[in-house]
Amino acid sequence: MAKHFHKELEKLKKRILSLGAMVEDRVRMAIKAIENRDVTIADKIINTDYEIDEMEVEIEEECLKVLALHQPVAVDLRFITAVIKINNDLERIADEAVNIARGVKYIAKGEKLHFDFDFYSMAEKTEAMLKKSLDALVNLDVDLAFKVCILDDEVDKINGEAHRIVKDVIKDNPDHVEYFINLLLISRHLERIADHATNIAEEVIYLIEGEIVRHGRLET
Amino acid sequence: MAKHFHKELEKLKKRILSLGAMVEDRVRMAIKAIENRDVTIADKIINTDYEIDEMEVEIEEECLKVLALHQPVAVDLRFITAVIKINNDLERIADEAVNIARGVKYIAKGEKLHFDFDFYSMAEKTEAMLKKSLDALVNLDVDLAFKVCILDDEVDKINGEAHRIVKDVIKDNPDHVEYFINLLLISRHLERIADHATNIAEEVIYLIEGEIVRHGRLET
Repeated sequence: MAKHFHKELEKLKKRILSLGAMVEDRVRMAIKAIENRDVTIADKIINTDYEIDEMEVEIEEECLKVLALHQPVAVDLRFITAVIKINNDLERIADEAVNIARGVKYIAKGEKLHFDFDFYSMAEKTEAMLKKSLDALVNLDVDLAFKVCILDDEVDKINGEAHRIVKDVIKDNPDHVEYFINLLLISRHLERIADHATNIAEEVIYLIEGEIVRHGRLET
Repeated sequence: MAKHFHKELEKLKKRILSLGAMVEDRVRMAIKAIENRDVTIADKIINTDYEIDEMEVEIEEECLKVLALHQPVAVDLRFITAVIKINNDLERIADEAVNIARGVKYIAKGEKLHFDFDFYSMAEKTEAMLKKSLDALVNLDVDLAFKVCILDDEVDKINGEAHRIVKDVIKDNPDHVEYFINLLLISRHLERIADHATNIAEEVIYLIEGEIVRHGRLET
């Protein structure tokens, strides 16, 4: 029985990591779509989102099955609760990739306008946060998970900067409001992906240390 | 033992509903703050958000304790999993109320500018969705929960409309970009509250009917 249970836990771990890899891929595609204003990639992200949705539902059903059949306690119980929540965050990250793809489809329609903002550094940081949070989960690496939480502040700052730049650039280009608002929204979607990666990292810390680090308890 | 367990389930139900009532109150305050550009209310929302955060952490810890101690199965297990997820949605709704409060503080700084958008109808619909989703949870009312899911489409449409109006109004008032972008963001925060209320309604449906209705399975 115990052996069977641990097999199921291993299976669950594999599945959440494979969902993580798929979602990481969508984020990478979304960033590529921004860089190259690539509508084909954007469409691919939008049209295959159902795969992520289906996988999320399956993983949650699997978690409930394992909880009901094996009634785990202590660290195993905590692991399954973490999987339920991380599963949810991953699905929402994929939704943000879809939102970015929709924004890209809009901005790709017109001419490319100058926008003095380092999008790619923000995108790179966000992608790195997601990668690190999943690596922290695979290796139960609490130090790496803490690094993700710190990086989140940097991404928040860059998003604030995008906000200020958009304000000025629209003043000079009132005819291209929609274009620049779409860029601003893309920056916010990246920021939300960073937030979800932080949630994942916090779940990993909780899983390892048994403390809830959410809501700024980190600093105390 | 069974009696003790059911007492704990009742306690959990009371706590999630009392968090729900607190969060509903924050949303109502946020809407009032928008209507009256009331910085005092906005500050109150921002400064008391830690209460919601603390309560969320306590409820999650309580859920894990009940899972570990009583190892519930079937509908009880499903109920506790639903509480874990609804708890999370409620906390994020409160975060959106904080985001709205920050937006209000910005727009309250300057003169009131004309913006031809029915904010209040959107706010009312969103508030009604949250109320209905919590009522559906209290009374395990699946019909009411379905109504919330349908209302969500209406709120999405209104948000799309806000987007179009902002675009035009900024063209005519390029000097007030930040003001109108803040209004647009407030509309998006309301839309996110509606999304979370939909998540809660879907959890209630799942709890009652044992089916996952997320990701459009509703229509099939």
